[in-house]
Amino acid sequence: MGRWEPNSRGRLQEAALALYSERGFDQTTAAQIAARAGVTERTFFRHFADKREVLFGGSALLKERIVTAVAGAPKKAGPLDAVAAGLDAAAAMLGASRRDLAGQRHAVIAANPELRERELTKLADYTVAVAEVLRERGVGEVQASLAAEAGGTVLRVAVERWSSGADDRELSEVMREVLADLRAVTRAR
Amino acid sequence: MGRWEPNSRGRLQEAALALYSERGFDQTTAAQIAARAGVTERTFFRHFADKREVLFGGSALLKERIVTAVAGAPKKAGPLDAVAAGLDAAAAMLGASRRDLAGQRHAVIAANPELRERELTKLADYTVAVAEVLRERGVGEVQASLAAEAGGTVLRVAVERWSSGADDRELSEVMREVLADLRAVTRAR
Repeated sequence: MGRWEPNSRGRLQEAALALYSERGFDQTTAAQIAARAGVTERTFFRHFADKREVLFGGSALLKERIVTAVAGAPKKAGPLDAVAAGLDAAAAMLGASRRDLAGQRHAVIAANPELRERELTKLADYTVAVAEVLRERGVGEVQASLAAEAGGTVLRVAVERWSSGADDRELSEVMREVLADLRAVTRAR
Repeated sequence: MGRWEPNSRGRLQEAALALYSERGFDQTTAAQIAARAGVTERTFFRHFADKREVLFGGSALLKERIVTAVAGAPKKAGPLDAVAAGLDAAAAMLGASRRDLAGQRHAVIAANPELRERELTKLADYTVAVAEVLRERGVGEVQASLAAEAGGTVLRVAVERWSSGADDRELSEVMREVLADLRAVTRAR
């Protein structure tokens, strides 16, 4: 194996998701992932702190992108419109991933309680950060929490539909439609 | 200590929450809780499978009450109105608890990642169950998820405001107002 390993990060992700799907997350080791990707274990650890980070490594960047977009929304935008800007940013980042890998990631997480709880915690973390930004924009305490939570809901539902193939349009389109559905559901009496 | 221990369950809950608050959840044992409540450790285990159940013991019943209320809402009620019936049922059950104990419970959970994740998982579980009932009522796939998630959001925000004392009205009133706030936030452009 040469020192030059083109796209070893991508290959490691692909190998990890395949193994997590086949054997289960708990039964997979970093060494097995590296072997499957055709790289050394050391290379694995150059890219990921541990095997969980293969699944959650992008979350700090995603949070930053969302928060920046919400903070940068036009001053006159209402709370949910500011959240919509954050959702567009999330769709741009997440929608650039391969849909099949996103679907595998979702299935792996759904199958493991610890990972499921971690995913929920990450989402709760984005939501708290967005609510804070909304408050800084002058949105009331409760309204800020509700708008941020609504955004978290739209993100989760849209990503699930997109990555499962239930909706074959681009993630950004799915996201906008789910947001419109949320508006419709809460309007209906 | 006599064999007859009036309200030992309530005293155990109170003792447990006090100890979890003072020492942290991980540092508290069932034996310490029993001693503080003035009962035997055996009595503790007659009421609770473990020390986590002191915090989460009501969740199966709560889920059942919510689901039953949503399923029993008038046939013509829209998805969010059916969810509102579930929220009323939740408020009736949770609002019967002492507000200070609910506040302590919230603080204990917020301070411990494992408990926080467990709480999020419980809430996600109610949400999935409510979405399923909504689908049985003829609500579309995505709309059902969104309405159920919106209900989860309202429940969480309302209980937090009520139990923290940020809003000193009855839980049922807080719940209705938070739901109205959610409708307003999603309506605003």
